[in-house]
Amino acid sequence: MDTQTSAQTGGRSGLERFFAPRSIAVIGASANPAKIGARPLAALKTNGYQGQIYPINPNYDTIGGLPCYPSAQAVPGPIDLAIVSLPAPLVPEALRDCAQKGVAYAVVFSAGFAEAGPEGAALQREIERIVAESTLQVLGPNTAGAVFHHTAMVASFASTFMSPPVHQGSGIAFITQSGAFGVYVYNLAQQLGLVFDYYINTGNEAGLEVADFLEYLADRSEVRAVALYLEQVRDGTRFRRAAERCFRRGIPVIAVKVGRSAEARRAALSHTGALTGAEDVYDAVFRQSGVVRVDGIMELLELLDLVVKNAMPRGRRTGILTSTGGGGAWMTDLCRQAGLEVPEFVGPTREALEAVLPQFAAASNPVDLTGQMYTQRDLFRRCVAILARDPAIDALVLLSGGDPETVGVGVPETVVEASQSSDKPLLVAWVGAPDWFYRKLGAAGVPAFR
Amino acid sequence: MDTQTSAQTGGRSGLERFFAPRSIAVIGASANPAKIGARPLAALKTNGYQGQIYPINPNYDTIGGLPCYPSAQAVPGPIDLAIVSLPAPLVPEALRDCAQKGVAYAVVFSAGFAEAGPEGAALQREIERIVAESTLQVLGPNTAGAVFHHTAMVASFASTFMSPPVHQGSGIAFITQSGAFGVYVYNLAQQLGLVFDYYINTGNEAGLEVADFLEYLADRSEVRAVALYLEQVRDGTRFRRAAERCFRRGIPVIAVKVGRSAEARRAALSHTGALTGAEDVYDAVFRQSGVVRVDGIMELLELLDLVVKNAMPRGRRTGILTSTGGGGAWMTDLCRQAGLEVPEFVGPTREALEAVLPQFAAASNPVDLTGQMYTQRDLFRRCVAILARDPAIDALVLLSGGDPETVGVGVPETVVEASQSSDKPLLVAWVGAPDWFYRKLGAAGVPAFR
Repeated sequence: MDTQTSAQTGGRSGLERFFAPRSIAVIGASANPAKIGARPLAALKTNGYQGQIYPINPNYDTIGGLPCYPSAQAVPGPIDLAIVSLPAPLVPEALRDCAQKGVAYAVVFSAGFAEAGPEGAALQREIERIVAESTLQVLGPNTAGAVFHHTAMVASFASTFMSPPVHQGSGIAFITQSGAFGVYVYNLAQQLGLVFDYYINTGNEAGLEVADFLEYLADRSEVRAVALYLEQVRDGTRFRRAAERCFRRGIPVIAVKVGRSAEARRAALSHTGALTGAEDVYDAVFRQSGVVRVDGIMELLELLDLVVKNAMPRGRRTGILTSTGGGGAWMTDLCRQAGLEVPEFVGPTREALEAVLPQFAAASNPVDLTGQMYTQRDLFRRCVAILARDPAIDALVLLSGGDPETVGVGVPETVVEASQSSDKPLLVAWVGAPDWFYRKLGAAGVPAFR
Repeated sequence: MDTQTSAQTGGRSGLERFFAPRSIAVIGASANPAKIGARPLAALKTNGYQGQIYPINPNYDTIGGLPCYPSAQAVPGPIDLAIVSLPAPLVPEALRDCAQKGVAYAVVFSAGFAEAGPEGAALQREIERIVAESTLQVLGPNTAGAVFHHTAMVASFASTFMSPPVHQGSGIAFITQSGAFGVYVYNLAQQLGLVFDYYINTGNEAGLEVADFLEYLADRSEVRAVALYLEQVRDGTRFRRAAERCFRRGIPVIAVKVGRSAEARRAALSHTGALTGAEDVYDAVFRQSGVVRVDGIMELLELLDLVVKNAMPRGRRTGILTSTGGGGAWMTDLCRQAGLEVPEFVGPTREALEAVLPQFAAASNPVDLTGQMYTQRDLFRRCVAILARDPAIDALVLLSGGDPETVGVGVPETVVEASQSSDKPLLVAWVGAPDWFYRKLGAAGVPAFR
């Protein structure tokens, strides 16, 4: 038994070695690329994982050029992380083997546990017993796994992780209780230019649960936001404590929580065996611990995008600039519905706006720049500068539209310049521009929405 | 005075000649392409308008090869529609000239009326007097104009109408009280593959107002839906009657109405001089007359897309199919929040599903097809066929995700085939597919959302 490794992990809550393992064993490794057991080996290679990789399968001598071992205990060196891809009935024995070897962590892909009836539930209780009686910590079973791009730790079989992402370093961690749906969300984020640094699917949570990861992430310097997809929280007290720790450290936690409706609770039960609880309790816990609950995936991703772009407003008071009076009124309604304030401009701000705006444009909130916004290039930049100076305004919204190439010369550059000249976030809602426009603004760090 | 034309228009409500004019005069026509007065001439040509075009401007003999006249009365033939692009103070005289000539309709681009203070308001009252004392009907002033693609009637200066649209025939009419914002929405719709057949901006409504157009469109056979962008309704009784007529004829009327918040009402006042009224009154009128009120532009366009694709569900009872248990629970929540029902399957439907589904998938609503959906191609099609037969279900929703090319062979084809085999609408919510997937499903008439 190799106790050195588990000692170095710092007990149950320290997940450093989980996300930065020096060695990974793949139990149920396969040379057949069609098998799930072949996927972690391939993924670790293509992602450029730098540690030791140990395929484990009694039927092979080598797999993909690597020596293959009959069991975890037969591996000559220490194992930080074991990936288990075996039929459910074989899993407890493999985990006992890992525990005896002193493996620190195991990720169990295998399904057929609590989500699959009484026989599976009994198998899951066996896993729980092993966890209780050893230092082995388990993610899963019934998990799509976990990924941390910084260390190329890819303990997953999902196709999307089989090659390294084009970008990373967003600082976003994503913990999801649904594996497949979590991957869909990860993929959608990637399409929108947002690569999550962490993907963690907790599956049936026989060992590690959401609160464990939230606790760990709260103390990581590279983490800028945590996204959650929740069906249920097992240990409410620990969850709240971890979420509060994130809040205090300025890490927004944004959650989609399933189970508002009785029908959805029924559906979750037959999915991961989760008994989703009383919604008012969840809402209260979220409110107390600063968790932002959203209903839509796009809403989740748009909020994360604001975090990445440092564009989270510090308060509710919003100044609206627009090229269309009608649209300005509509945006005012949307802001009010979202609980934001659209205060009238007063004092020096109003005077400064009046000095800059054409006579027919009112110096009120929203500021209607009219079509002059496009022809008089400096007008928008000057108005942004005036509002940026006003301590009674927390954030700026530009509502405009049309094809930026036909409406005026240098529109995207003007918007980017104006944004950079303000230390208050400028959020752009531009109706009906071509895709390049949103990408261009996004790449320059200006959040832009359709 | 040429009374023949106005007699043929059938009085105030018959707008046939407005949308299918045999002749159009452009008052304030210009040979300088930088001037607004040059735009309608160019647009009518590039859109292929087949009727007579009369430029009117005392300073030219010809414009763009067409003989130019000093006034409407100097034009030798009848004029169905006059487009007026003049400074505000010159507009009343030009309209009197039109009225004496017996012109049926005038579209007045010019701004500087009720929206611009007391002097402008006096000018607008002059227009109202001319309308009251003659058979001339006026759209505007302060309007971006009106367009009907079927007849290439382009009475607008907006860039987007300077060339003909790639598609038309959607059957969608769009009436907007904001010109620029209306154009933004038109452009966004076009990007999403939806070309509005009618664009109508009512501007300051000195003459024709929203209810006039709604009344007219209710009786047009090509109209399949009416989209509204409203700041205020002037004649509530007529509006309700026209909306009810649309409802009875199966034409959905979908409205974005600005002014829920006091701040937005203030903004609308300084925009088109509109006093937006009590919101509960609007909600009541909308409810009584079957108008669907939405808050978002994307929501508006998505509903219109369902109309065009014949995919409006006949009732609230929704069957959900999914490849992800977690996502299925989430979609169940979203359906319940939207006021839909997600009833449990019973009787023959349940039995048929049980016979088809793999053992580990529950035959409940949502139906979790698991990853089998991708590998067992027939599974999805068969489940759709079973639910299509169930009279207790009104619509089907598929929630899935991932890259359709990597998750399984022939995924888009399978979805399209299954949709076509059902006479209940199948709505697809697919998280994180590439753009081509949504376009492919959309082109096949299957509404697909991110």
